[in-house]
Amino acid sequence: MSGPEEIPVGDVGGPVDEFDWIARHLRPLASDAPEALGLADDAAVIPARPGFDLIVSKDAIVEGVHFLASDPLDLVARKLLRVNLSDLAAKGAEPYGYFLAVAWPPGAGWNARRAFVEGLGQDQRRFGLKLFGGDTVSTPGPLTASVTILGWVPAGGIVRRAAARVGDAVLVTGAIGDGGLGLRAARGEGLGLSVDDQTWLKARYQTPQPRLGLGEALRRWAHAAADVSDGLIADAGRIAAASAVQITLDIDRMPVSTAAGAWLGLQPDRVAARLALAAAGDDYEVLCTAPPSAVAPLKAAGETLGFPMTEVGVVSAGAGVEVTSRGKSVVVVRSGWRHGQ
Amino acid sequence: MSGPEEIPVGDVGGPVDEFDWIARHLRPLASDAPEALGLADDAAVIPARPGFDLIVSKDAIVEGVHFLASDPLDLVARKLLRVNLSDLAAKGAEPYGYFLAVAWPPGAGWNARRAFVEGLGQDQRRFGLKLFGGDTVSTPGPLTASVTILGWVPAGGIVRRAAARVGDAVLVTGAIGDGGLGLRAARGEGLGLSVDDQTWLKARYQTPQPRLGLGEALRRWAHAAADVSDGLIADAGRIAAASAVQITLDIDRMPVSTAAGAWLGLQPDRVAARLALAAAGDDYEVLCTAPPSAVAPLKAAGETLGFPMTEVGVVSAGAGVEVTSRGKSVVVVRSGWRHGQ
Repeated sequence: MSGPEEIPVGDVGGPVDEFDWIARHLRPLASDAPEALGLADDAAVIPARPGFDLIVSKDAIVEGVHFLASDPLDLVARKLLRVNLSDLAAKGAEPYGYFLAVAWPPGAGWNARRAFVEGLGQDQRRFGLKLFGGDTVSTPGPLTASVTILGWVPAGGIVRRAAARVGDAVLVTGAIGDGGLGLRAARGEGLGLSVDDQTWLKARYQTPQPRLGLGEALRRWAHAAADVSDGLIADAGRIAAASAVQITLDIDRMPVSTAAGAWLGLQPDRVAARLALAAAGDDYEVLCTAPPSAVAPLKAAGETLGFPMTEVGVVSAGAGVEVTSRGKSVVVVRSGWRHGQ
Repeated sequence: MSGPEEIPVGDVGGPVDEFDWIARHLRPLASDAPEALGLADDAAVIPARPGFDLIVSKDAIVEGVHFLASDPLDLVARKLLRVNLSDLAAKGAEPYGYFLAVAWPPGAGWNARRAFVEGLGQDQRRFGLKLFGGDTVSTPGPLTASVTILGWVPAGGIVRRAAARVGDAVLVTGAIGDGGLGLRAARGEGLGLSVDDQTWLKARYQTPQPRLGLGEALRRWAHAAADVSDGLIADAGRIAAASAVQITLDIDRMPVSTAAGAWLGLQPDRVAARLALAAAGDDYEVLCTAPPSAVAPLKAAGETLGFPMTEVGVVSAGAGVEVTSRGKSVVVVRSGWRHGQ
């Protein structure tokens, strides 16, 4: 990224020169990061940090696919960062910095960009991130953005998806299903719930809470971990596939929020409704497996951080995911899980 | 990225499941990279390399903006890598690996994806790159992709844009203007040239040559460098702005290819035509500044690598870019340069 020396003061609602945008809005996000070279170069410099591995993840979002055209752009930007931060959290990594690529549609003027940048700045401060670089381009299509996020773990300390072991317990942070219900609330469905519950669920969908802070406990106690982005069952299936094991989930023990509990109370088929929550995505909780002796310390770590860690299943020899209720099998997903985006 | 354990053999021209695509096409691109964790995790692991800095750059492309809908997708993929490799080349870095995010439009089936991946594989092998991870999503809009590229330089060795010094000579690799003429040829303009020249220029536009290999000489001899992506004058302007100096370019000394020379011979106004080439983009040559004593060794380094390095200007106190012809000023760009994408 680079920019002009002189910044004209134009119509703040008018058309945007990409270099002006970088200079006015993005450079302040990189001002504390020597790595970014002032966003005045084509690259960033990451010095070696002996004793640490760099953890890198990259996620992209598209308007109309991953967020709604009606979503406020500051929240879209915050969610983009949080989705990437959630990957770091599940790997046991601490946040470091990020690269941003944005393709702006024709209608996106200064006001849209200011909102987007305000969201980035807010969550940068909150999570200790800095902008290191990226690219800004125009598109005739929908708003499209990607973040490449960088984090640190002590060398060799990454918590992998492919490391679940037979006999492990399966635990999950927070609550499952709020993201899926929140998406429905954001689309205007009342869900039979109070306005307060609808608003709360919508916020869970729009601004998920990456479970950072759990990193040290995960590195110490967990064998495998991944974040729940595509649904509890789907992401358990990916851990099972990558680790060549079977995971059995007890749907009755799946943790749900008060609001999701209210929704569950309105559904005629309790098990089907819980399965629907387990199949919905956008939770951004951490799902992990750990030996039975590690369950208590992991729960204690969650308690210290202010969220529950709930034991929801076990790892056994085999393949795929089996979901049980009251001791009986209700769903079996034999092969790896797929979704159609 | 993650994928299923069993891969169904479907209609190879039919609709695509993103996880199948990752398993079938992308995983082989990461098979030699332990960093990628088999593309079976949400992140990659980059071990510290003591004594080296990691250089990171990120560029995005959009169909209809950065490439033509008629461009073959293997060439689009190769250009995407090469545009990023060009950034590494200009910073004096050696290629290491990359992260890819692609948003596929509805019509992009297996054949389109196979072509794209073939292009990636071809240039991975050519330039010693590996795929480390990324994201694949769908879009209702045009094909959009970004690459985050990683390279290494010896610690502190990056060649910055902001480091030009008064008294430096300005040199450029290869030839300027082929990218701009090649774009016109790709759009079907004959340019008054032979079919051979048109084809050659189109290839220069579609598959630029990142000037890798020059890294050691740049690190040793150059003060500042950047690649020429938006035109010789524009990128000289950015070096000038970032370094707080003036750059004077002698348009008569600007190196041009045989094909561009043939085009120049057909133009009524020699200086205007050379300026048009200097203002066109997509050259992906390296522009650098170096003390006068370093001109001979830099030229010798280029000769060894098989391309010319031509002295095209000087750095002086001041601001902006001045272009001269036969000793007279023909263009002055006072402030920083901007473009509208």
